[in-house]
Amino acid sequence: MLGFSVNGTKGNMQIETLSWKGEAEGTLEMIDQTLLPTQFKTLGFSGGNLEGVWEAIHSLRVRGAPAIGIAAAYGVCIGLQSVLDETDEAAFFKRLDEVATSLAGSRPTAVNLFWALDRMRKAAGETRRLMDETGTFSAREVATRMLAEARAIHEEDRRICHAIGKSGEPLIPDGAGVLTHCNAGGLATSEYGTALAVFACAHEAGKNIRVYADETRPLLQGARLTAWEMLQRGIPVTVICDSMAAQVMREGKVQAVVVGADRIAANGDTANKIGTYGVACLAHLHGIPFYVAAPKSTFDLTLATGDAIPIEQRNPEEVTRGFGRQTVPDGVDVYNPAFDVTPAKYIKGIITEFGVVSPVTEENIRAMLGKPAASKETQG
Amino acid sequence: MLGFSVNGTKGNMQIETLSWKGEAEGTLEMIDQTLLPTQFKTLGFSGGNLEGVWEAIHSLRVRGAPAIGIAAAYGVCIGLQSVLDETDEAAFFKRLDEVATSLAGSRPTAVNLFWALDRMRKAAGETRRLMDETGTFSAREVATRMLAEARAIHEEDRRICHAIGKSGEPLIPDGAGVLTHCNAGGLATSEYGTALAVFACAHEAGKNIRVYADETRPLLQGARLTAWEMLQRGIPVTVICDSMAAQVMREGKVQAVVVGADRIAANGDTANKIGTYGVACLAHLHGIPFYVAAPKSTFDLTLATGDAIPIEQRNPEEVTRGFGRQTVPDGVDVYNPAFDVTPAKYIKGIITEFGVVSPVTEENIRAMLGKPAASKETQG
Repeated sequence: MLGFSVNGTKGNMQIETLSWKGEAEGTLEMIDQTLLPTQFKTLGFSGGNLEGVWEAIHSLRVRGAPAIGIAAAYGVCIGLQSVLDETDEAAFFKRLDEVATSLAGSRPTAVNLFWALDRMRKAAGETRRLMDETGTFSAREVATRMLAEARAIHEEDRRICHAIGKSGEPLIPDGAGVLTHCNAGGLATSEYGTALAVFACAHEAGKNIRVYADETRPLLQGARLTAWEMLQRGIPVTVICDSMAAQVMREGKVQAVVVGADRIAANGDTANKIGTYGVACLAHLHGIPFYVAAPKSTFDLTLATGDAIPIEQRNPEEVTRGFGRQTVPDGVDVYNPAFDVTPAKYIKGIITEFGVVSPVTEENIRAMLGKPAASKETQG
Repeated sequence: MLGFSVNGTKGNMQIETLSWKGEAEGTLEMIDQTLLPTQFKTLGFSGGNLEGVWEAIHSLRVRGAPAIGIAAAYGVCIGLQSVLDETDEAAFFKRLDEVATSLAGSRPTAVNLFWALDRMRKAAGETRRLMDETGTFSAREVATRMLAEARAIHEEDRRICHAIGKSGEPLIPDGAGVLTHCNAGGLATSEYGTALAVFACAHEAGKNIRVYADETRPLLQGARLTAWEMLQRGIPVTVICDSMAAQVMREGKVQAVVVGADRIAANGDTANKIGTYGVACLAHLHGIPFYVAAPKSTFDLTLATGDAIPIEQRNPEEVTRGFGRQTVPDGVDVYNPAFDVTPAKYIKGIITEFGVVSPVTEENIRAMLGKPAASKETQG
């Protein structure tokens, strides 16, 4: 059942946030996440419609760090469709510059966006060098090589997500209730997601599980997106308000918590969507194992601990006018941190594509990443 | 600054959810809570407009157990305005029966409603007996006596709320951040509220405090009502999503938590709005004192512990369509418990009109209520 999309049907459906159909002249298809959960609509971009891809990234029609990177990579391919028959090498590469610069401005704070654009530029540069050696420039050939790079970025993310799911699956007992916060799923990545990959793999392994999805105020990614994904995969899901997680745990309905991560410090302290820290506290108090699922690329060894992670404050209107009507009186202060940091001591394990780091210590994290501490290297 | 209402101005304003203007022919004024926080509108009922009062209770224009009781008591007075000049004693009391029966059907699950109607009937019955002894029936005199009873119910609640505030005020340090969940305020009672009375008294005592109001999903009473009340009283208030309480505590912004209660068992276990238990867990883990503020009438000694309190499940649409648009896909399960139970072990003290019960034990609760345990009475 892996690797294909059955839009419109429910149960065991893979989530294909992004897919490329055809070759260099092909079409980028994208689920419009802003319309979920009430409408499922796939957008199609082709014929050099760079502006369309730009607007989709800018307006959060595609969201989630890996998905934004993949969309940008394919977006470069869309932008180059207007110069596929260009014979002037300089004109082609001038267009590439324009396209990459434009896309870089679509979500200026998204790290994966720059990383993906950088990879695409490098792929173009390498192809150019090879052509310069043989003296035969072909715009279509460069564009084809770049599409292959975009597909590689996409495929790598897919493999990583699947490997995370496989790593975490043994941690979920048959018959378990599992709780998650926000949406670390296929919509935010390719196909499987991170935290939700663990649930998908447990479900595919024949385990009978039920997912409790925190609605995740203020932007309700849990209610809107996680619930939708679980429904597509045929995994039983119950949406709760964030304030109900403690009660659900107290009633014995939850045997494990799995969440995603935005950034993980060297000691394992984990930044993730606001509310994650509270869930970790509650899991700790109820003796429920709390896991973080994240790829290697989420670890930032330049941060000794989570104290070094700045907490971004977001627009108060997300709280006061979250979903169509005003819910807070004018003139009242609002606190709206985007993230919080869960200390490593509350994390039972970090589920990565290379296996589970547990207990969560700097030594174990560095061993998993293949980067032992500098001091120890010296000692060794 | 106590005891009068300055509608339309902000700062040190008393919250008068309900007030009666004039004598037996007078007017019941009521804040329409369904319009808050975006509109402040006071409804007026007079001229025998029983249907208006019935609709207001039924449609939650007035909410909160004590406020519903007071509204029903005044509602009886409104209903009797059509028979103030009635000379036929039987016809007058037939109307009273109709009025009380009608109001009892406006919110069939509200205990305070029946309690208040019962008190009003008793007051009428006593007056009738006195008149029967002298042989002089006066409809207006009975109605006037009943208005006095409604005012007494109102005034008793006001005194109780004020006494709760005074009991709790010393627990709030100057400069404290205080967190509350839901709305245990003047809108739900008369003037001061219970949990919010503690903040109002601390503010009136000149203490510099800031209230953190959980928005309180699904019905957002914290965002809509608590924030509004604090704004009227000129008390600094910050609205947060429920999922942010842990982060606010971790940042050291909160020195005390005070919440209301729906029902308190003999051992101190406390049922209150869903989410209260989670806040108590978080306060416990962060070493922050967690208090419950409630009148004597909230204690139910027939319940040995909180395990005996049934948890009502409410309409899933409160979660799925809470903000005016659909936020959860169709076909997904929703869990929407109305209440949760906070175990006594997480409650530092229960603030009542007779003082603070701390530590929270059955013995201390019974001592405060003047009802020592039966076994101990036998022993003594």
